[in-house]
Amino acid sequence: MNVYFNRLKEQHPLIHAITNYVTVNDVANMLLACGARPIMAEEEEEVEDITSLCEGLTLNIGTLSKVKIPSMLKAGKKANLLNHPVVLDPVGVGASTFRTEAAYELINNIQFSVIRGNISEIKTLVEGKGKTQGVDANELDEINEDTLDLNIERIKSFAGKMSCVIVVTGAIDLVADKERCYVIRNGRPEMRFITGTGCQLTSMITAFIAANKEHILEATAAATLMMGIAGERAYSELEKTDGNATYRNKIIDAVYHMTGEVLEREAKYEIR
Amino acid sequence: MNVYFNRLKEQHPLIHAITNYVTVNDVANMLLACGARPIMAEEEEEVEDITSLCEGLTLNIGTLSKVKIPSMLKAGKKANLLNHPVVLDPVGVGASTFRTEAAYELINNIQFSVIRGNISEIKTLVEGKGKTQGVDANELDEINEDTLDLNIERIKSFAGKMSCVIVVTGAIDLVADKERCYVIRNGRPEMRFITGTGCQLTSMITAFIAANKEHILEATAAATLMMGIAGERAYSELEKTDGNATYRNKIIDAVYHMTGEVLEREAKYEIR
Amino acid sequence: MNVYFNRLKEQHPLIHAITNYVTVNDVANMLLACGARPIMAEEEEEVEDITSLCEGLTLNIGTLSKVKIPSMLKAGKKANLLNHPVVLDPVGVGASTFRTEAAYELINNIQFSVIRGNISEIKTLVEGKGKTQGVDANELDEINEDTLDLNIERIKSFAGKMSCVIVVTGAIDLVADKERCYVIRNGRPEMRFITGTGCQLTSMITAFIAANKEHILEATAAATLMMGIAGERAYSELEKTDGNATYRNKIIDAVYHMTGEVLEREAKYEIR
Repeated sequence: MNVYFNRLKEQHPLIHAITNYVTVNDVANMLLACGARPIMAEEEEEVEDITSLCEGLTLNIGTLSKVKIPSMLKAGKKANLLNHPVVLDPVGVGASTFRTEAAYELINNIQFSVIRGNISEIKTLVEGKGKTQGVDANELDEINEDTLDLNIERIKSFAGKMSCVIVVTGAIDLVADKERCYVIRNGRPEMRFITGTGCQLTSMITAFIAANKEHILEATAAATLMMGIAGERAYSELEKTDGNATYRNKIIDAVYHMTGEVLEREAKYEIR
Repeated sequence: MNVYFNRLKEQHPLIHAITNYVTVNDVANMLLACGARPIMAEEEEEVEDITSLCEGLTLNIGTLSKVKIPSMLKAGKKANLLNHPVVLDPVGVGASTFRTEAAYELINNIQFSVIRGNISEIKTLVEGKGKTQGVDANELDEINEDTLDLNIERIKSFAGKMSCVIVVTGAIDLVADKERCYVIRNGRPEMRFITGTGCQLTSMITAFIAANKEHILEATAAATLMMGIAGERAYSELEKTDGNATYRNKIIDAVYHMTGEVLEREAKYEIR
Repeated sequence: MNVYFNRLKEQHPLIHAITNYVTVNDVANMLLACGARPIMAEEEEEVEDITSLCEGLTLNIGTLSKVKIPSMLKAGKKANLLNHPVVLDPVGVGASTFRTEAAYELINNIQFSVIRGNISEIKTLVEGKGKTQGVDANELDEINEDTLDLNIERIKSFAGKMSCVIVVTGAIDLVADKERCYVIRNGRPEMRFITGTGCQLTSMITAFIAANKEHILEATAAATLMMGIAGERAYSELEKTDGNATYRNKIIDAVYHMTGEVLEREAKYEIR
């Protein structure tokens, strides 16, 4: 996996993020930590200019407002035209009709390279029938060892249907195209007590694939592994009184200090 | 007080926050730290859907813009209809005509369960004559031992007038309905050098009362005590070179590690 | 330099910031750390009221949207009328036509006391021909010992043309009016891996000059020195596993603990 990370470190791609204002600061610092450079811009009049300067685009629909939809569409279409990878984070899709319809409008008009969400979000987006409760996955949908085989087939089929890589994060992370699925067992359950680890991963995936355009699946898996490993390493650094706020910082710090060697050594995955 | 906290920990209510973009990330992490789950959404077209999924609603008028007022009104009315508790943080009311009028529009159209502010904000909101300077309390208004009796009566009368619980935070915190007032002496003066501790408390109050709908006054007092105790415990953890940024993180961390036992043992309050 | 800092600590001016939502929380905490008090407000209907309460105004065009331009113009003109210092951070000017034109509209309608940016942003703003790539300086433009003399003359001439103090931050920082240039050699290269150190400095400059209206050049140099020294002191505090997220916090913490004595002792500058 270190080859994909090394390319990111060499190229330090500029990433255009249209994202929610809750976690945007952590997204920017995470992009810097992994070796990329962030630029946030969402005004409809400038998004095409901005995305043209960049090497990849992240669209994240947390705290979505109506005025941002045309901006996302313009940026996404421009990035498609320029052959820049575009990644979607359908935060909370299914939680409101507005957000669900906006997500459909995005997937109907933009070719995404990768879509990342929790299982409820991904099911809602692809099948139109997940049950999203807020921004967290519904417990019934959860991917565990018992439901793994079924979910691997489902995610591969989703990837085929959407013609892109699908990433489902949870207790086990799945990264799949229509033929292969990386089953990833890194990460810590405590990461869900930090707001925005999903948003951060989505932006990091964008950075990884912007530097590895010929290896979207592998580079996406590398980014997902790196987030999980960073979560583990940061957790092992926590003092007794450190909680979710400090853990948030230490995960970004762990990405900042990540090396290809650590990534290779600590990655826990199989390809199915 | 631990019974109210235990209920929050068991129910982990989903809280809808329409809040300012300055402190929103800390608000989200604080909600997660105390055992709740946050969702931020402010687009007028989705706020009713979102608030219907949730168990409580926080409205915070920091960085208010005109487009957010109808969103707040819709969300608040829907929450009232569903009998979800709604909490108002009238940040900076009195600092501009726009913000003052917006706050009045909110209190005239929404029945709040709790309103939390500093003394200047609360006076402006209820009496229309506080002198707010920015987002901090005016020094002349400050609640101290000399002005305590007077202020207890005033806040009780405000609570009666507004038919809700009023929380005034400062050197001494007051949490009152029309008959009883919790006088709380936890917290540290250094907390005012952190942006958003008030916003965080307001959201935590929403979480506490969402899980304790039959005990609004007591649960609000428990949240206020918890914030103060977290401020004390975090302060005692600071190293010599730690300043307000690290203190911010450590307060959230302290809430993350809070137990009912600590809350009971370290709470300093009387009921008047 | 400590006289300017001492005045800031005594006066704790209220600073109105219309700034980007990526780094706004750090900006608020940095203003508190240095002894000022922040208020963020951007609704067109309230910006004149808000800026009238304050002692200084920061305008930062990161994540600029169309609706914020009239707000910035109104706030800036009001601040000019009241003789409050106004500081511009032209984030990403040159990265889009929209942003470039917005920046021109601001400088054509508002008299700024200080403009701070990286060399690419400043060249684009003043000469209309820098080559901005995203929010970072173009490498070709970089100020180093070889290009120093040339750049000192250029920045002085820019300052004369704009009738304000110009601050260019980079490996070497330049703070100049048309006659004198502070050449500052504090700071750490790792600061560029933190989002928003530039935004934080811009807001801190606003605080310094709001408390030192008769000494704009010197107070701006003092703020710039303080940011660099804080970056050095925070860096020396980092543990082996600390990365950019923790470094971000420690810089704010270092400003929180800064003293006039440290500022004097550790400042590395010459006046040219």
